[in-house]
Amino acid sequence: MQPLILVTNDDGVHSPGIIALFKAMKELGEACIIAPDRERSAVGHALTLHRPLKVEELRENVFSVNGTPTDCVALAVHKILPRKPDLIASGINRGANLGDDITYSGTVSAAMEGTILGVPSFAISLIGDRPFYYESAVPYAIEVGRHILDKSLPYDTFLNVNIPNVPRRDTIKGIRITKQGKRVYDNAIQEVFSPWGDKHYWIGGGKPYWEQGEDMDIQAVLDGYVSVTPVHLDLTNYIALEYLRKTWKP
Amino acid sequence: MQPLILVTNDDGVHSPGIIALFKAMKELGEACIIAPDRERSAVGHALTLHRPLKVEELRENVFSVNGTPTDCVALAVHKILPRKPDLIASGINRGANLGDDITYSGTVSAAMEGTILGVPSFAISLIGDRPFYYESAVPYAIEVGRHILDKSLPYDTFLNVNIPNVPRRDTIKGIRITKQGKRVYDNAIQEVFSPWGDKHYWIGGGKPYWEQGEDMDIQAVLDGYVSVTPVHLDLTNYIALEYLRKTWKP
Repeated sequence: MQPLILVTNDDGVHSPGIIALFKAMKELGEACIIAPDRERSAVGHALTLHRPLKVEELRENVFSVNGTPTDCVALAVHKILPRKPDLIASGINRGANLGDDITYSGTVSAAMEGTILGVPSFAISLIGDRPFYYESAVPYAIEVGRHILDKSLPYDTFLNVNIPNVPRRDTIKGIRITKQGKRVYDNAIQEVFSPWGDKHYWIGGGKPYWEQGEDMDIQAVLDGYVSVTPVHLDLTNYIALEYLRKTWKP
Repeated sequence: MQPLILVTNDDGVHSPGIIALFKAMKELGEACIIAPDRERSAVGHALTLHRPLKVEELRENVFSVNGTPTDCVALAVHKILPRKPDLIASGINRGANLGDDITYSGTVSAAMEGTILGVPSFAISLIGDRPFYYESAVPYAIEVGRHILDKSLPYDTFLNVNIPNVPRRDTIKGIRITKQGKRVYDNAIQEVFSPWGDKHYWIGGGKPYWEQGEDMDIQAVLDGYVSVTPVHLDLTNYIALEYLRKTWKP
């Protein structure tokens, strides 16, 4: 039996990135898109609990859900797919998912949800600005997906993949296994006014600045490599745990 | 100068849990509530980028924002408070935030955002069902807040606090420092029908089942203790990183 592969994203079911990833995953098995009906960026690991969700079959093996990427994965695994998938691929995202930003990312959260549900998963993103060269990422999506299908993944862990956005894939130097980088936020927030003169705040803009370090996800991409970071779901700081046990005398 | 303490949550600015936490934090310094205008549970670490946000001053030191808990922290730190706060307290949440569920939680995500912005933070939740005895949690909120103000926290780390929901605080046995537990999901999804007969899916219901282990957050609370888990933002699985570097030969 061919591997069953769920393809999802946070840019929405009609984005060119998910079409490129769908094509890539069809090289590895039977692929099925189950994705948000519209863009759901920066939604984090949000799950819709306050209303019912509608699933629409758009064409063969392509479904949209009026919810978040996390909703899509939960519905796919439990209700839509004929069996538990062998792999979940989320992306190809329009823009980077590096450092602490992964906790905001709908793309990465879909891989997180897959991992919670016991399905080996990866998130894949293109770093850079328009135009996006999704085709350059396709061979790496296949490479990562094949690796996971062949070797599986460590317990409670998924792969966060970032790819330089370059027109020619042969200018990418290869894959580097990295750690999650650390962004220094400039936290741009703009002040805008409504037609009635009320002040509002609009989060966004500004340029990220990154801590340096050869091991970092951001550095790999700056150096022209694909960054692959193994991300796990146990967020316990074990060193702090031991320290607090010794020092906290309530 | 008194410590400046930001109080936020995901149950909304009018919830009894945030009022109890506000009262607790006023024991430790100058407290200010900046919280969502309505309930924003399970929103994860969502940041609102697609529209401007409105801040309303409801009364002295109490502000509402028509956004997520993460939005509230970002606006508070950068735009609303007179200076960077010394502490961020998020809660008291109506219901547990344990195990992998912390990645869905708006309450926990506010503490995560505080940590990203370099402010020592904690999230605090009551475990159990209605009625909620927020008053029982107040001395522990003060204890945790005081500890953080006195001793600070390790780099990139916040505290996730869960408290048994009991009417008499003297039945709580004390504080236990714990690791993030692991939930085994039953993933209940209900099928419901619209007035026009369309099938929809509604995520929710079902009972969580937890892996056993004395160190676990859930076990501490089941044993009658307050659980305090140090959570960090570096999600890299370093063991997997070393393993992948040795074994992945693309």
